[in-house]
Amino acid sequence: MELKDRIRIVENFPKEGISFKDVTPLLQDKDALKETIEIIANYLKDKNIDVIAGPEARGFLFGVPVATALNVGFIPVRKPGKLPYETLSIEYDLEYGSNILEIHKDAIKPGQRVAIVDDLLATGGTVEAATKLIEEAGGEVVSLAFVIELTELRGRDKLEGHDVMSLMKYDI
Amino acid sequence: MELKDRIRIVENFPKEGISFKDVTPLLQDKDALKETIEIIANYLKDKNIDVIAGPEARGFLFGVPVATALNVGFIPVRKPGKLPYETLSIEYDLEYGSNILEIHKDAIKPGQRVAIVDDLLATGGTVEAATKLIEEAGGEVVSLAFVIELTELRGRDKLEGHDVMSLMKYDI
Repeated sequence: MELKDRIRIVENFPKEGISFKDVTPLLQDKDALKETIEIIANYLKDKNIDVIAGPEARGFLFGVPVATALNVGFIPVRKPGKLPYETLSIEYDLEYGSNILEIHKDAIKPGQRVAIVDDLLATGGTVEAATKLIEEAGGEVVSLAFVIELTELRGRDKLEGHDVMSLMKYDI
Repeated sequence: MELKDRIRIVENFPKEGISFKDVTPLLQDKDALKETIEIIANYLKDKNIDVIAGPEARGFLFGVPVATALNVGFIPVRKPGKLPYETLSIEYDLEYGSNILEIHKDAIKPGQRVAIVDDLLATGGTVEAATKLIEEAGGEVVSLAFVIELTELRGRDKLEGHDVMSLMKYDI
C-alpha cells in the first residue's frame, strides 16, 4: 500500500489557493491507519520517550495511538480555555493574526523526554510554539513526528536543532 | 489501580456550578491510559465493529487508540468548517443555543457497523446527534462507549435502544 493514496487533496480549502491534504481517508482505512502509527512508533521506540504530546485537534488523532503503541502517556496541547486546571500558555504569530496554545502546568515531570506528534508540518509555527511550552514546563523535546510535511514551507528550518521526521512529503 | 484516581475534579469549570471531570491525568499516566483503552476495546471486540467514530476534540483522544486496538478505522465527527470535502451536517440543541456536527459524506460504507467513543456522557445531546449523522450516512450504530458517565443527567434515556457502556460513573 502506498500511504499517499490515502491522502485526499482538496483544492482551495480552507481558502483560495490552498491545496489541503485531507487525512480522513487514511484514518478510515484500518491498514493505512495501522501502518501510519507503526511507522511513527517504530521511529520513536529507541529514543526513550516518556510521553507524547499532540496539538489540538488533529494532533490528537495520531498522537494518542502512537502513545499507546509505545506504552507511554499523552499530553494534549490545547487552544485557550479548554484545559480546566492551571495552565502555561504561549502566543505565536500566524500569517494573519496570532494563536495561543496551552498545556497544564503539571502536565510534565521535570526532565521527561517528550515527542510531539502532529498530522502536518507546514511553516512549523504551531509545533515550534508547542516545543517552547513543553520546555517551559521542564520537558525535553526529543523528536517531532509528522504524518505529512509540506517541504516548500520550510518548517524544518524553524525547528533546526530538533530531530524531525515525516512520513509523506509534498511540495505545496 | 483505581481509574477514578486519575480523574481530576475541577469545580466551577467551564462555568459556575459545574464540577468538571478532567481526563488529562488519566491520559498522562501510561498504565491508566492503557487500561482505559483495553477495557473499551475488550467490550467492543465481539461486536463486529467495522469502524470507530469520535466527536471532536476529546472523542479523538480515546476513539483512535480504541480503533487501532481493534484494528479498524476511525471517523472524525467534527465541528463546522473543519472537514474539507463534501459533508453531512446536523444541528442540535444545547442548554443555551445550538451546535453543529459534520462528517464527510463518504465517511461510511453502507451497512458498516459503527461504535461511537467519547470521553463523556452527560445529557447525551452530542452523541445522539453523532448517531443520527452516522445513520444518515448509511452506518449502523452498534454501541456507544464513554470513559465517564454523569448519571444524574440521564443521557442513557436519550440513547434508549442503543447499547451504552461507560467506565466510570459520577453523580453530577
